[in-house]
Amino acid sequence: MTTKWVYLFREGDASMRDLLGGKGAGVAEMTRTGVPVPPGFTITTEACNTYYAIGRKFPEGLWDQVLAGVQDIEAQTGTQFGDPSNPLLVSVRSGAKFSMPGMMDTVLNLGLNQATREGLAKLTDNPRFAADAYRRFVQLFGKIVLGVDGERFEHVMDEMKGHGERLDTDLSSEELLQIAERFKAIIKEDVGAEFPEDPYDQLRESIAAVFRSWNGRRAVDYRRINKISDSLGTGVNVQSMVFGNMGSDSATGVAFTRNPSTGEHAIFGEYLVNAQGEDVVAGVRTPQPISKLEETMPEVYDQFIGITRQLESHYKDVQDVEFTIERGRLWMLQTRNGKRTAAAALKIAVDMVNEGVIDKATAVQRVDPAALDQLLHPMIDPAARKQAAVLTTGLPASPGAASGKAVFNPDEAEQIAATGEKVILIRVETAPEDFHGMVAAQAILTARGGMTSHAAVVARGMGKPCVAGAGDLRVNYASQSVTVNGTTIRKGDWVTLDGGTGEVFAGELDTVEPELSGDFSTLMAWADEFRTIGVRANADIPRDAAVARRFGAEGIGLCRTEHMFFEGDRIDAVREMIIADTEEDRRAALAKIEPLQQGDFEGLFREMAGLPVTIRTLDPPLHEFLPHEDHEIAALAAKLGVDANKVKSRVESLREANPMLGFRGCRLGIMYPEITEMQARAIFKAAVAVKNEGIDIHPEVMIPLVGNANELKLQEELVRRMASEVFTAAGVEVPYLVGTMIELPRAALTADEIAETAEFFSFGTNDLTQTALGLSRDDSGRFLPAYVEKKIIADDPFQSIDQRGVGQLVQIGTERGRSTRADLKVGICGEHGGDPASVEFFYKAGLNYVSCSPYRVPIARLAAAQAALGDAKRDK
Amino acid sequence: MTTKWVYLFREGDASMRDLLGGKGAGVAEMTRTGVPVPPGFTITTEACNTYYAIGRKFPEGLWDQVLAGVQDIEAQTGTQFGDPSNPLLVSVRSGAKFSMPGMMDTVLNLGLNQATREGLAKLTDNPRFAADAYRRFVQLFGKIVLGVDGERFEHVMDEMKGHGERLDTDLSSEELLQIAERFKAIIKEDVGAEFPEDPYDQLRESIAAVFRSWNGRRAVDYRRINKISDSLGTGVNVQSMVFGNMGSDSATGVAFTRNPSTGEHAIFGEYLVNAQGEDVVAGVRTPQPISKLEETMPEVYDQFIGITRQLESHYKDVQDVEFTIERGRLWMLQTRNGKRTAAAALKIAVDMVNEGVIDKATAVQRVDPAALDQLLHPMIDPAARKQAAVLTTGLPASPGAASGKAVFNPDEAEQIAATGEKVILIRVETAPEDFHGMVAAQAILTARGGMTSHAAVVARGMGKPCVAGAGDLRVNYASQSVTVNGTTIRKGDWVTLDGGTGEVFAGELDTVEPELSGDFSTLMAWADEFRTIGVRANADIPRDAAVARRFGAEGIGLCRTEHMFFEGDRIDAVREMIIADTEEDRRAALAKIEPLQQGDFEGLFREMAGLPVTIRTLDPPLHEFLPHEDHEIAALAAKLGVDANKVKSRVESLREANPMLGFRGCRLGIMYPEITEMQARAIFKAAVAVKNEGIDIHPEVMIPLVGNANELKLQEELVRRMASEVFTAAGVEVPYLVGTMIELPRAALTADEIAETAEFFSFGTNDLTQTALGLSRDDSGRFLPAYVEKKIIADDPFQSIDQRGVGQLVQIGTERGRSTRADLKVGICGEHGGDPASVEFFYKAGLNYVSCSPYRVPIARLAAAQAALGDAKRDK
Repeated sequence: MTTKWVYLFREGDASMRDLLGGKGAGVAEMTRTGVPVPPGFTITTEACNTYYAIGRKFPEGLWDQVLAGVQDIEAQTGTQFGDPSNPLLVSVRSGAKFSMPGMMDTVLNLGLNQATREGLAKLTDNPRFAADAYRRFVQLFGKIVLGVDGERFEHVMDEMKGHGERLDTDLSSEELLQIAERFKAIIKEDVGAEFPEDPYDQLRESIAAVFRSWNGRRAVDYRRINKISDSLGTGVNVQSMVFGNMGSDSATGVAFTRNPSTGEHAIFGEYLVNAQGEDVVAGVRTPQPISKLEETMPEVYDQFIGITRQLESHYKDVQDVEFTIERGRLWMLQTRNGKRTAAAALKIAVDMVNEGVIDKATAVQRVDPAALDQLLHPMIDPAARKQAAVLTTGLPASPGAASGKAVFNPDEAEQIAATGEKVILIRVETAPEDFHGMVAAQAILTARGGMTSHAAVVARGMGKPCVAGAGDLRVNYASQSVTVNGTTIRKGDWVTLDGGTGEVFAGELDTVEPELSGDFSTLMAWADEFRTIGVRANADIPRDAAVARRFGAEGIGLCRTEHMFFEGDRIDAVREMIIADTEEDRRAALAKIEPLQQGDFEGLFREMAGLPVTIRTLDPPLHEFLPHEDHEIAALAAKLGVDANKVKSRVESLREANPMLGFRGCRLGIMYPEITEMQARAIFKAAVAVKNEGIDIHPEVMIPLVGNANELKLQEELVRRMASEVFTAAGVEVPYLVGTMIELPRAALTADEIAETAEFFSFGTNDLTQTALGLSRDDSGRFLPAYVEKKIIADDPFQSIDQRGVGQLVQIGTERGRSTRADLKVGICGEHGGDPASVEFFYKAGLNYVSCSPYRVPIARLAAAQAALGDAKRDK
Repeated sequence: MTTKWVYLFREGDASMRDLLGGKGAGVAEMTRTGVPVPPGFTITTEACNTYYAIGRKFPEGLWDQVLAGVQDIEAQTGTQFGDPSNPLLVSVRSGAKFSMPGMMDTVLNLGLNQATREGLAKLTDNPRFAADAYRRFVQLFGKIVLGVDGERFEHVMDEMKGHGERLDTDLSSEELLQIAERFKAIIKEDVGAEFPEDPYDQLRESIAAVFRSWNGRRAVDYRRINKISDSLGTGVNVQSMVFGNMGSDSATGVAFTRNPSTGEHAIFGEYLVNAQGEDVVAGVRTPQPISKLEETMPEVYDQFIGITRQLESHYKDVQDVEFTIERGRLWMLQTRNGKRTAAAALKIAVDMVNEGVIDKATAVQRVDPAALDQLLHPMIDPAARKQAAVLTTGLPASPGAASGKAVFNPDEAEQIAATGEKVILIRVETAPEDFHGMVAAQAILTARGGMTSHAAVVARGMGKPCVAGAGDLRVNYASQSVTVNGTTIRKGDWVTLDGGTGEVFAGELDTVEPELSGDFSTLMAWADEFRTIGVRANADIPRDAAVARRFGAEGIGLCRTEHMFFEGDRIDAVREMIIADTEEDRRAALAKIEPLQQGDFEGLFREMAGLPVTIRTLDPPLHEFLPHEDHEIAALAAKLGVDANKVKSRVESLREANPMLGFRGCRLGIMYPEITEMQARAIFKAAVAVKNEGIDIHPEVMIPLVGNANELKLQEELVRRMASEVFTAAGVEVPYLVGTMIELPRAALTADEIAETAEFFSFGTNDLTQTALGLSRDDSGRFLPAYVEKKIIADDPFQSIDQRGVGQLVQIGTERGRSTRADLKVGICGEHGGDPASVEFFYKAGLNYVSCSPYRVPIARLAAAQAALGDAKRDK
């Protein structure tokens, strides 16, 4: 028995998306439920895959089944393919499982040739209509099926219209026919063959062209960007033509059952009288709003509204429909779930629950967590954006838009911002010592660095816009200016950044602040009902903690104590500590830092009353805190009252070949236990002080970069000793945990040993990615984009977790850790904590919580809920 | 029933080492086999462990069993503990499973007090002897059991002897008793209690002191250095005293049954007449060679020789014995396997097989593979060494000794060496661009870098001595000198290095060349009979390959193609390639390199005729090949005829934050396929050329730093395409393999996918250690030594593989790789390939071969044989 390659519309239904593609399943479902759809059939995606599998040939039986399908259309419409007296005309459209705009345009009016064109003219008594239909067909077929450069056809059209003197509609039948002939000449010249007169030839070639378009450049790119599998194949829909261009009682249009921008519950769409579908898209004439139809064709309008309501309640989601009115008769050509903005998605989901259309679980699954980002940050006013030219584009490192005066130095950023001016900090790349400038700036722009560069990570943590790695920038610190593609921006010039798109604009563009609607809180509350995995935030200072809590964070998963080291004058004490030769001198410097750290921790504990606060001990290599320029070194030496050469030699001796793998993390605390002692004391003193205020607190001390159970044991003993000393002195006890980051492959592989000491694990997936993949995030820019491009890897592993490699270590570490300590609390605090796909993975790996930057907390909450709901797949 | 804590000597035997310790088992075995041993008993190691387990208390029943043991000695000797008329005196000695010199000294003459001392004087009719014995006992007990500073006793002795005017033997009985009383006063002052008069108190305290000494500082350090478990515990041997100091018919001595330096089959030892054991060790009087005994006490000598022969043939190994002659009667006090030099170990092992004493397998197990290093490299003449002062000590990075004139610049090293002068290259650290200077030098000395720094790795590869990371060196390139601890060495001054010890000497010290005896080849041949895992060498140039083959390498496991890039002028073409902006320019530069690489490969193939040669494609980051100083950049720009700024900006743009994790390995070949193409073409052209000479060759192309199966796939396709092009053009086919290095954790974890393409794996354990542990080998010097010191880790993971972490990845990678490809060939080519413990691990992990630097090939062969023999443990 031959495979069934062809399904008549009435043979399919909505559930057959895999086989018929989205469009095919949609028209089948409409046909099945009695919606007026022009008859037709769908060639299956399986036929497409078989076409490739057997070497770009039609599978056996396909053509016969196509012919049978054509006969069915003929029978239903009373027309005949190639019959001049009553010709059947069809459209041929691709239709994959997921909508892929731009994959292949539609071929319309297929079936026309000299004879049928004349027949059509007679039949409709409208020679111009027939001529125009023919011209369109030749043009589309030539371009889409035969691959002739469309420009050449446009050029002819343009010439005939006197280069803009006349409109399409001004062309006469004769002129249109003339144009068609010229088109055919171009085709013959280009392809080397006559334009096919036989409708069956036309059909066969069009079907093959749709198959081929599946592996066309545009389609392949689209799938890569949208992570759609190459193996799905496309369906082909062959459908009898209806004409919206048969006079003033004909029209064509598109509509959404609800407003796709705002979510407003009202039909939203537009149509053109006397036009074919492509005219709406081409924008040659301005279409009319759908409400106008109520005035001009009230009966059709009522029928249309009835059908759209039926479709929406049938699909239980907003529908995006295409329709044509042929001589007063309404035909529905397509229905699909409508794409929408994040704001609309929110409102529609909440409204539909209130209307009783869907349940809360469905509503939670309807909103793309990643899209929430749009709602949480200021945007460039769309009106302003239209008029602005993009100066350059970098990586969209931290979302949101901001304008300010260009500043190239963090100190100046601080000074100018102190006068009330808005500034944008522009640097080649940022370092921890630029922190105060980043705090002062509205946004950060860097020429170098990736999505997880210092600038990007810090900016996301602060919820500040950041465009990173804008490689075209030529930053010149000496002249305090930046040149980009011929334009020079000087200190004080206004610039605007869009951290959500990576765009950089010269000048000040208006931005609009986000408003978090009640729908947002409603949906997030529903999400929390389904969510089973906790969501914490990475926050270093009380202000960030407050933002995180407002966004629903259930604690702090990572406080990087060293981020506080750069605030104010304390960096001097930090540097003094690093320069010190003896433990005694180090302790003296640490004593200056201790009360400041204690104050920081108190602030965090207060903001996070009742919730856990995970504090990581010192992590980065010490040289990150030291100045590197000679004049800075001299200044520091003068301040500390030591010899500049000594400082210089200390800076030099701390220089490392691979700082990422160097003297950092718990290695610091093991070699200089007095640092961990100071930090632990500051934590427990702060805990006692805040507890004495009557606040419930849950400190968790986290030791970084542990590779070996003994390292943790040594640091843990020290932390517990400090706790006991502080508690004894204060006569107050605060319950606390001691745990570790798992950020080295060895730690994951020996997690059973480490869990003997650790009360909790937090996977540091940034560093775990760097080590497991041997991939420095700062240096990967030279090849990682090409790796994604060449499909060597599916995603940037710093954005979405590498499940097979790094994810495997997360699974191993979790399992082995719990094999020793069954109630081990396991979380993650890398950048991946705010990535929906990664959150789903962590949920499946059995983690207790994810921790991400404050502004990504809502995203994580929603993604976690969707993961728990078992199907995080969203309509593409 | 109480545990048996005490074994009489006649109750034990040699097999009870775990329970009785080495010494206890030795005397028990001698007792059992009829050798004259003074009666005694051993307290078990279990008693020691229990002592600690129950809080430093004697286990229940121990003391009663000790008392029973004392009664047994009394019965055998006819003496009685504390009986003035016929007192029993005993020695108390520690004795762990493995000999631990310096753990605890022996307490002799225990049982003496005022009364028994007088009794002894009467009984022996020798009051001076009794007084001296008493003085010795008080002194030893005070120092060893009570912990009084020995200096205080020495001070009294010194005073009594008139500060060197008289010898010990010149002291009269009265003086000795006076001394003893002064000792007791010191003890009372120090300890706050009277010296114990009761022999049973003396015994109890001594036993406890031996238990305590197990966890004394010296013992703990010794165990750490020698990797002996802390949980073994020590035995305690209580033995009736015999006296070598009872007159001229008494003596005491030590002997080896064969010469421990040369292995010569002749008794080797020395003795002192009228002395106790400690006198031999103290070196106060010069002992006489054992042959002298034949003249003075021929009967005793004959008995002694008979016993030593009996012991050697009983233990089937060289014995190190202690003996005492008391009034003409011979007593054996101890026997144990004798420590020996590598040369002696070799000769003894081979001789004993020839004598029929042991079999080949035993012989192979008798030689410590690591000790072979001594035999393969020149040494400083021991005579010369005695007179030389060590300037400083660095890391023993590559064994062997060499002298030469100090040179601070690789170019000069080359120039001066070309005139026939010997030079030592002294650098702060070396980089690949120093390679030619290293080739020219006799040895390399660096101030910075660890055991696996560039200097160390390259030097070991070349078999050249290297002392690395000598941190006291202050190298000044400007003045071409180095200052170390106050001494300045200028260019042209002679220096001598010992790369086996890390010592640096000023001046020219004579060195002696190693002679590889026939025994060496014999033993290695026997080793190969048992060995089941292959041994290859890491060699980059034909000369190294030749050395490797001479040492028995069965192929090349790693040829680092880039090491050839620095030879002669070719670095210019390499740099031109790196500076190139376009693929075309890159190809032009690569075309210059190709014939040179082909020539290199031809040389390797010829040297390794019949054996596999694994060639790795380009691995290091490109900036390693570029100059970094402004004047070098200018020179290069001039040479290439390009703008210096362009070169500078290229150098700058290739700078990386963490080059170890950066743009290197297969990432280079993927971004610049033309590089891999060139190298593959050179390999296959060389293969064809050498095959045409009638030589059988087996090239294996190895792709480095693969983290992802797709990377390997892309590079493999390219390599196979080149092979096919070259073979087609030549009309000759050469069988070859394509495989990969597994040096990233992700590669090990996804080895099943990678093995779909890879025909072999070679674990790059250097980089795998760096990534799995997050540990840069260049930067670990600041904390790794302290980690070993603090026992956080057992070994430097760059020297001996971290079995639990990195080893686990090797096991996972091997298993998963073979799950996809059952016949996957798996090897390792990191530094660990020459480390005996690591070789044993790799053998157990089921690897097919190890590959190490040429000079370590014999070590790996022997270690592999021992691993296969199932018990690689050697007598410690």
